[in-house]
Amino acid sequence: MEKTEQLYEGKAKKVFATDDLDYCIVSYKDDATAFNGKKKGTITGKGVVNNKMSNYMFKMLEKHGILTHYVKELSDRDTLVKKVQIVPLEVIIRNVAAGSFSKRLGVPEGSVLKCPVLEFCYKSDALDDPMVNDSHVLAMGWATEAEVNTIKEMALRINELMKKFFLSVNIDLIDFKLEFGRYKGQIILADEISPDTCRFWDVKTHEKLDKDRFRRNLGGVEEAYAEVMKRIGL
Amino acid sequence: MEKTEQLYEGKAKKVFATDDLDYCIVSYKDDATAFNGKKKGTITGKGVVNNKMSNYMFKMLEKHGILTHYVKELSDRDTLVKKVQIVPLEVIIRNVAAGSFSKRLGVPEGSVLKCPVLEFCYKSDALDDPMVNDSHVLAMGWATEAEVNTIKEMALRINELMKKFFLSVNIDLIDFKLEFGRYKGQIILADEISPDTCRFWDVKTHEKLDKDRFRRNLGGVEEAYAEVMKRIGL
Ligand SMILES: Nc1ncnc2c1ncn2[C@@H]1O[C@H](COP(=O)(O)OP(=O)(O)O)[C@@H](O)[C@H]1O
Ligand SMILES: Nc1ncnc2c1ncn2[C@@H]1O[C@H](COP(=O)(O)OP(=O)(O)O)[C@@H](O)[C@H]1O
Ligand SMILES: [Mg+2]
Ligand SMILES: [Mg+2]
Repeated sequence: MEKTEQLYEGKAKKVFATDDLDYCIVSYKDDATAFNGKKKGTITGKGVVNNKMSNYMFKMLEKHGILTHYVKELSDRDTLVKKVQIVPLEVIIRNVAAGSFSKRLGVPEGSVLKCPVLEFCYKSDALDDPMVNDSHVLAMGWATEAEVNTIKEMALRINELMKKFFLSVNIDLIDFKLEFGRYKGQIILADEISPDTCRFWDVKTHEKLDKDRFRRNLGGVEEAYAEVMKRIGL
Repeated sequence: MEKTEQLYEGKAKKVFATDDLDYCIVSYKDDATAFNGKKKGTITGKGVVNNKMSNYMFKMLEKHGILTHYVKELSDRDTLVKKVQIVPLEVIIRNVAAGSFSKRLGVPEGSVLKCPVLEFCYKSDALDDPMVNDSHVLAMGWATEAEVNTIKEMALRINELMKKFFLSVNIDLIDFKLEFGRYKGQIILADEISPDTCRFWDVKTHEKLDKDRFRRNLGGVEEAYAEVMKRIGL
């Protein structure tokens, strides 16, 4: 299938229409942003890593019964996906304290959590993606109660599958962000799963293998993305 | 029962021990603070209003089967209560958009919400009372799942009872904050219910009859507290 007009350009991907209204093509860029776009840069080759890794993860999850938007990898940076209506929530799952969780709650980074923490943030650049809870989602009409329950169940199941998978390549899955969408009356997993959207720490050394290297100016950004690819076998 | 040593001095109340370990005496002050203590002042007579109004509300709720810490009013400012172990959460219930909800989510003040919104904030002056959700509460061990469910059910039931009561005296209950505690293995309602902890708007004029007059320098603070007392018939 071919790209027709560009529907949307986000911070990390472009979305194109196709001849078929049920599908779109996502095109992964090397652009990197952090802190709601306040920090900008380029991570050479990131688009390729994130495209291939996302597709690998979606296929793995599909094998375990998780519905995803993945259809077909078209090139190094382009993938055909089911065109969904995005639920305007960033769904964050945390296994270990880090980032904003640590800062907001005064918990040192690296503290293992007693149980997974699931957070919703309302996707709004203008409002700085504020954290919200179930009752906000219902009161604002961003999703129905059934959708919220489905999203939570899927997110926790995805966490179990991803934790296990990454541990098998010596990576601790610290936390990650998902987006879900509506497709023909069902909630399916959309967007991406990549070092942009996950915190990955080496199991032994706790070395960061994710976008925190960019956010925190730690250097070795491209190398970290490449290392994760290598460990996955891509 | 008599006060023995002072156990704690908070921003609005002092808590004293008694001869009986199961009870304590709360003593309501005229001190007013806002924005996590960054704004300070005095509202003359507030302690008396908040003491009498809280006790009136606790008695009303007890009549409808809600367990509260209320035992006996000892004087204009002092009340004997069951000594609880406070669950370190501010439980906020919202019927109409206002305050931080409006600011964070970009919803104009006064917008009626489709369903009540229930928020938890972790009681921590050092962390500025961050908003948290159920999974934070469980992961941090602040309460058990059963306690969280009980607190939510009680809070929503209390909202229904309070909304109805205040409407009968021509006041719209916009939002309010509750605190719960553990007493002999049960979750009971503690702390206070007053113009310090509720947003009250006149049904017709939408005039503010609560601490927002102090927070926002609207004047007529003492008069507003007195007006609510008068409407309740106290
Ligand atoms: N299957 C899909 N159908 C439609 N839109 C999608 C799909 N998957 C992801 N999107 C959306 O594509 C947009 C572009 O992605 P991205 O560049 O990551 O945006 P953002 O700047 O919001 O992070 C996002 O709004 C994302 O929600
Ligand atoms: N029944 C009770 N038993 C023990 N402590 C209580 C009870 N009711 C309220 N408290 C606590 O009394 C303290 C004093 O109240 P307040 O001055 O409002 O404190 P704050 O500065 O935390 O708002 C608070 O920590 C509150 O949680
Ligand atoms: Mg994105
Ligand atoms: Mg208080």
